[in-house]
Amino acid sequence: MKENRVYNFNAGPAALPLPVLEEIKDSFLNFKGSGMSVTEVSHRSKWFDDIINDAVARVKRLLNLDDRFSVLFIQGGASMQFCMIPMNFLPKGKSADYVNTGTWSTKAIKEAEIQQKQMNVVASSEDKNFSYIPKEIQFNQDAAYVHITSNNTIKGTQWASFPETNGVPIIADMSSDIMSRPMDIDKFGLIYAGAQKNIGPAGVCMAIIRNDMLELVPDNIPSMLKYTTYSTKNSMYNTPPCFAIYAIQLVLKWLEETIGGLSSMEKINKKKGEILYGLLDSSPFYRGTAALDSRSLMNVTFRLPDEELEKRFVQEGIDNSFIGLKGHRSVGGCRASIYNATSIEDVESLVDFMKTFEKNNG
Amino acid sequence: MKENRVYNFNAGPAALPLPVLEEIKDSFLNFKGSGMSVTEVSHRSKWFDDIINDAVARVKRLLNLDDRFSVLFIQGGASMQFCMIPMNFLPKGKSADYVNTGTWSTKAIKEAEIQQKQMNVVASSEDKNFSYIPKEIQFNQDAAYVHITSNNTIKGTQWASFPETNGVPIIADMSSDIMSRPMDIDKFGLIYAGAQKNIGPAGVCMAIIRNDMLELVPDNIPSMLKYTTYSTKNSMYNTPPCFAIYAIQLVLKWLEETIGGLSSMEKINKKKGEILYGLLDSSPFYRGTAALDSRSLMNVTFRLPDEELEKRFVQEGIDNSFIGLKGHRSVGGCRASIYNATSIEDVESLVDFMKTFEKNNG
Repeated sequence: MKENRVYNFNAGPAALPLPVLEEIKDSFLNFKGSGMSVTEVSHRSKWFDDIINDAVARVKRLLNLDDRFSVLFIQGGASMQFCMIPMNFLPKGKSADYVNTGTWSTKAIKEAEIQQKQMNVVASSEDKNFSYIPKEIQFNQDAAYVHITSNNTIKGTQWASFPETNGVPIIADMSSDIMSRPMDIDKFGLIYAGAQKNIGPAGVCMAIIRNDMLELVPDNIPSMLKYTTYSTKNSMYNTPPCFAIYAIQLVLKWLEETIGGLSSMEKINKKKGEILYGLLDSSPFYRGTAALDSRSLMNVTFRLPDEELEKRFVQEGIDNSFIGLKGHRSVGGCRASIYNATSIEDVESLVDFMKTFEKNNG
Repeated sequence: MKENRVYNFNAGPAALPLPVLEEIKDSFLNFKGSGMSVTEVSHRSKWFDDIINDAVARVKRLLNLDDRFSVLFIQGGASMQFCMIPMNFLPKGKSADYVNTGTWSTKAIKEAEIQQKQMNVVASSEDKNFSYIPKEIQFNQDAAYVHITSNNTIKGTQWASFPETNGVPIIADMSSDIMSRPMDIDKFGLIYAGAQKNIGPAGVCMAIIRNDMLELVPDNIPSMLKYTTYSTKNSMYNTPPCFAIYAIQLVLKWLEETIGGLSSMEKINKKKGEILYGLLDSSPFYRGTAALDSRSLMNVTFRLPDEELEKRFVQEGIDNSFIGLKGHRSVGGCRASIYNATSIEDVESLVDFMKTFEKNNG
């Protein structure tokens, strides 16, 4: 690995593309001839305008967004969205549908409950420890929105395709698989994604909102919790998290110009999945934990024959520069997060390591 | 200037100490031998624990905080605090006192009003265009808190000392002068500061809270808007803005180890103020806009004989590498922000430029 860098399989904050890190490093004392670091230029300057406008334009191109959609940058992570969504889009007398596929969906539901909002959990995979994505869900036709979590980082599940809601807008937490594949935007009223998995460092959440949703935003809620505050000011009502937005811009540039867009990205991600799930399926030693039809191409969760071996596996991984193979503290086991920035070669190296570990311990 | 860097008098995001930027740059691809960028390490790792714990410890040492206080890192800037403060500390049946010293105080007041909270604006300097800090204020003894803005970046005013409130906790927005001088913490229930002026890059707000205030936090408000969510999880209920906290840690290290603490910092800041205000007071060409006893040592606001000259002054500044001399878009005129990272030599260079400009245009 270059510059003594490791194989980073962290779930988030996660690996970033090396060319992005190199560009940040190289320009860090003098951004584009400004004589300032990117952390020192004013957010009201042409330098930062160029950054945020380019980031927005790239999101629109990558996802084929038309003028019905706005791209916003909001602080507080996906967790802040959990509270903003019902606050903005769930007025008295209306109800929303939530699908519970694990920790993050559960938290989104809890934040609607705290506000005493009316909603229905229309489907849940809790009966099987959130190891699958529910199918054939009956949505309420008068729901204000349907909330889903497109990818569950902890259980390693992912919606392979998005449900038919007959016009009810889907609101999706895509923190862990945004920009990993092309998608049909027409079903969505709002997509949000904490940056620190697939599009940048921690400290900003990207929101893609269909503009007609903005008409639902009530007047009497705090300014920083209103989507309109961000949409009317190009995300600069107050000082935005400039560095994180800059890093996102560079990741999007890499996605467009180096990878070649989301179709190419999806092909690479599918290939990575085939390699790693291929090992899990062919080995008696490793066992994938997610249902076959619900497997995530971003977070691959698996178990070894016993916990003692898992512990050894994680430690030997670290000793061999494979970082982040421990499962989430709430579930144990093992996990390799293979977001966009993880290359096919990285996954091949991991599989080589896993095969060797199996040979020595199987 | 080193590496073609400019003299940066931006109001925020603002100049950062060069050694801080250099350390970030040098370690950016491999943080402390981790083989990862600081933007790629997990917030649940020892690497990040060390960052945030060191940042908290340095804040406590620099401000002489005892165990009554907690140090929190929250996203959304000071603007998010404007809404969180009444939400957390102003229950029905109680009222709060606000002092209005300009734009930021006004916004804080507005966010309490939006929530239909009861409060009194007990003093305001609006009668003289916010050019001074009100004195001899009568506070309500049953107020839940007294809210002030310690320094007004736009008008260039600053509280020289803090008012006697007879035990009512002061809540202070110190975004633009935190860590610029030692202070007596005993009067304060909560101090908050968007980082991007004196302690770091944009994207995080530091909050110093007296722990007994946490007992007032109601249960039924969204998790991300409760101070207790941050205090019980060392600011890591969800993924924190890791990079911004890391940069703060380095700025605090610079403050302690290079500058020598807040008494030394105050001496330097006073010296800078003497040099720059000295020119304003001795020149018939430049005219300071803040009342003498309310002048800010952080943001020096001034006018030239006419707007045409001001425009030329700002442009010639840029041409000579003096950046950020334009006043806030809401008031016009000129402003030099001379936060902690601005050295005495930087201010001397600015004064030399101003003298030359006066000679050529006076």
